[in-house]
Amino acid sequence: MNKKFNYKYKCSSCYSIFEADKIESEMIYICPLCGNVQQNKPLKGVLEIFYNYDFLKKKYSKNYFEEITSGKIWLYPDLWPIDFQLYDKSLLNLLSLPQNQILHFQTDKYNLFFQDETRNPTNSFKDRATIAVVLKAIELGITEIAAASTGNAGSSLAGICARMGIKSHIFVPKNIPEAKRIQIQSYGANIYIVDGDYDEAFDLCLDIASKNNWYNRNTAFNPLTIEGKKSAAYDIFINTKGEIPDVIFIPVGDGVIISGIFKGFSELLKLGLISKLPKLIAVQAEGSSAIVDYLFDEKFSYKPAETIADSISAGAPRNLFMAVKAVKDSLGFGIKVNDDEIISSQKELSQKFGILVEPSCSASFAGYKKTITNFTKQEKIMLLMTGSGLKDFNSLKLWNEMPSIKSADEWKNILATK
Amino acid sequence: MNKKFNYKYKCSSCYSIFEADKIESEMIYICPLCGNVQQNKPLKGVLEIFYNYDFLKKKYSKNYFEEITSGKIWLYPDLWPIDFQLYDKSLLNLLSLPQNQILHFQTDKYNLFFQDETRNPTNSFKDRATIAVVLKAIELGITEIAAASTGNAGSSLAGICARMGIKSHIFVPKNIPEAKRIQIQSYGANIYIVDGDYDEAFDLCLDIASKNNWYNRNTAFNPLTIEGKKSAAYDIFINTKGEIPDVIFIPVGDGVIISGIFKGFSELLKLGLISKLPKLIAVQAEGSSAIVDYLFDEKFSYKPAETIADSISAGAPRNLFMAVKAVKDSLGFGIKVNDDEIISSQKELSQKFGILVEPSCSASFAGYKKTITNFTKQEKIMLLMTGSGLKDFNSLKLWNEMPSIKSADEWKNILATK
Repeated sequence: MNKKFNYKYKCSSCYSIFEADKIESEMIYICPLCGNVQQNKPLKGVLEIFYNYDFLKKKYSKNYFEEITSGKIWLYPDLWPIDFQLYDKSLLNLLSLPQNQILHFQTDKYNLFFQDETRNPTNSFKDRATIAVVLKAIELGITEIAAASTGNAGSSLAGICARMGIKSHIFVPKNIPEAKRIQIQSYGANIYIVDGDYDEAFDLCLDIASKNNWYNRNTAFNPLTIEGKKSAAYDIFINTKGEIPDVIFIPVGDGVIISGIFKGFSELLKLGLISKLPKLIAVQAEGSSAIVDYLFDEKFSYKPAETIADSISAGAPRNLFMAVKAVKDSLGFGIKVNDDEIISSQKELSQKFGILVEPSCSASFAGYKKTITNFTKQEKIMLLMTGSGLKDFNSLKLWNEMPSIKSADEWKNILATK
Repeated sequence: MNKKFNYKYKCSSCYSIFEADKIESEMIYICPLCGNVQQNKPLKGVLEIFYNYDFLKKKYSKNYFEEITSGKIWLYPDLWPIDFQLYDKSLLNLLSLPQNQILHFQTDKYNLFFQDETRNPTNSFKDRATIAVVLKAIELGITEIAAASTGNAGSSLAGICARMGIKSHIFVPKNIPEAKRIQIQSYGANIYIVDGDYDEAFDLCLDIASKNNWYNRNTAFNPLTIEGKKSAAYDIFINTKGEIPDVIFIPVGDGVIISGIFKGFSELLKLGLISKLPKLIAVQAEGSSAIVDYLFDEKFSYKPAETIADSISAGAPRNLFMAVKAVKDSLGFGIKVNDDEIISSQKELSQKFGILVEPSCSASFAGYKKTITNFTKQEKIMLLMTGSGLKDFNSLKLWNEMPSIKSADEWKNILATK
């Protein structure tokens, strides 16, 4: 096998270091020494991948990144645990993300940068993790992949697998939004609806995937999910030509997106490409706030999650510890918003900015509005938009009633008087 | 006003030529000499914009296009009837389309290029027309824009207007797919649902817009819609580095998309940038086939349209004559597909290629499969994917039944035996 192991795995709990060859050939996901999956609890022993940054510094200069385009992780291959040489370039191109996802609005009231992830192949941020996982699966010779999902990770895995000719198995809770369920089915995935919540779907997926030898894309559990999500930091770095934001508001459910973005910026720091980390602000829904709560009192207690923002609904955030570290080490903070704030922000985002997103994204806008006085006018503020509004269409129905239907003549009478 | 008129308008019926200043300052849409809007008939006197191509040849060389990125029409400004200098660059950037929309699949069975327009700002091809219309409206000092729409043009206008701070008015038939209606409403547009079909909504919109002095984005009627859509040809040219396809399958309803694409390639030919036009294949649904029928017998007779593919449902294609010319002059042909073929192609596209599109797009795949023997292996074939499947979610429900819901233990029993 034409593999190069220029990276190792490190446990984020006990800090033990493992050779990549061992972890991957034995299909180990969490720390073999202290790793621990328990029902309704955060994961212990989440593994992180690391590289020889001092060595890579020479190769990946600022100039290097100025000459490549965003959205193609294979353009900086040594920062990935994937042997891209195994792949034909035309195959990789099927996994490109759109370039230039940043929308900058400067109005009387706001000066905001939006990182728009709704145009990814399956219309959500989750494609970043899926791309890394699927490439690793192919490299390992695995042809079936499983995931538990509240919707976006599942539709992402289903869509990318369809594109790459791989079979997918998706475990979802019964409250999955209809549009996401139909998206998963349309891509031809096997779907298993569990009469329970996301945490139950997660545990079921672990069990079945291991029995059937399917590769497991469960978020946090598979270290490639965090690794894949770091690409957002690199893309922001490339697209801003190094002038990265000072602050990023991130919707947080299980904690993997914020951990991935933190990892990306930390690497850019280690490579000497940026001089400080952006402050990462974890925004959670009031009904699903385990990570923000932990930031206040360093305690975790399980409460079933309840929020309109299904993508960030997680009673037991599997990546809690890493997410907490991301907020603290970046000098950010946590903030909770309620469902009414989430919905009114969804409305404001679409009507004032033409950005149609699902409730989890509008949570990050709601969090920003709530803490606006914490920031100076000079600070460059970015909001992460993780999923398209078309994927959760029932949330849009809440504030868009069915309009009246009238004949052409009736409309003429009404509108003539305007 | 800092305007430069390096272009004129020409009637596509009587070939009269008009100064841009006159047409635009008087808000004329169709030919003032022979133009004619009649209920349930194609438009007569559709205006086309033209430039001094011999002069522009010197400026817009192959090298010029090699150095710019796709998705930004302001990077080749003299080929647009818009004074881009009036706009701040950051405002224009809000109207960027994603770069690199081409997906190339080479399998045992197929060697196909897909032009993926589903990642545009409002997830359909219609954004290309809207961008040109909205910029022209702002240039003319107009702050309200109206359009009749089966869904995509309306949600596009609503979304782009929200982004640019302009008021929009959308006239839709009562059979508009729910997701598109809600998308229009979410962007804060005024929506008027007409108890009738698209043709009635079209006529109503003409009447009301003219009475209220709103700028009219009605497709074909406003020459900027055809002009905007030509950008797809330029983007394909840029992204293929001049190696454009030999054949393009295009879903056809009112005929504006195919006319716009034809115009773009014709300009590239006039500029000496390509040596021949791609063959344009017009694909229509059997229940809405006026343009394909006209190609056979040169006759138009109105029949109410009926097809699952709402985006190409038009009993009276307003741009019939120009679309017919596009097919003939490019040495293409017309082909009809039925709703069953459309739906099974929608399924195949999502499951084999991971491309989730609305039925109009799968029509173009169905048309390709039906005529596959007309082409050699050497011909480079492209299919145009005009709108996301998430925008017409009811069509996906037709072939995706509600799966069963089971407890985790039940799933364990079932899946253990796999």
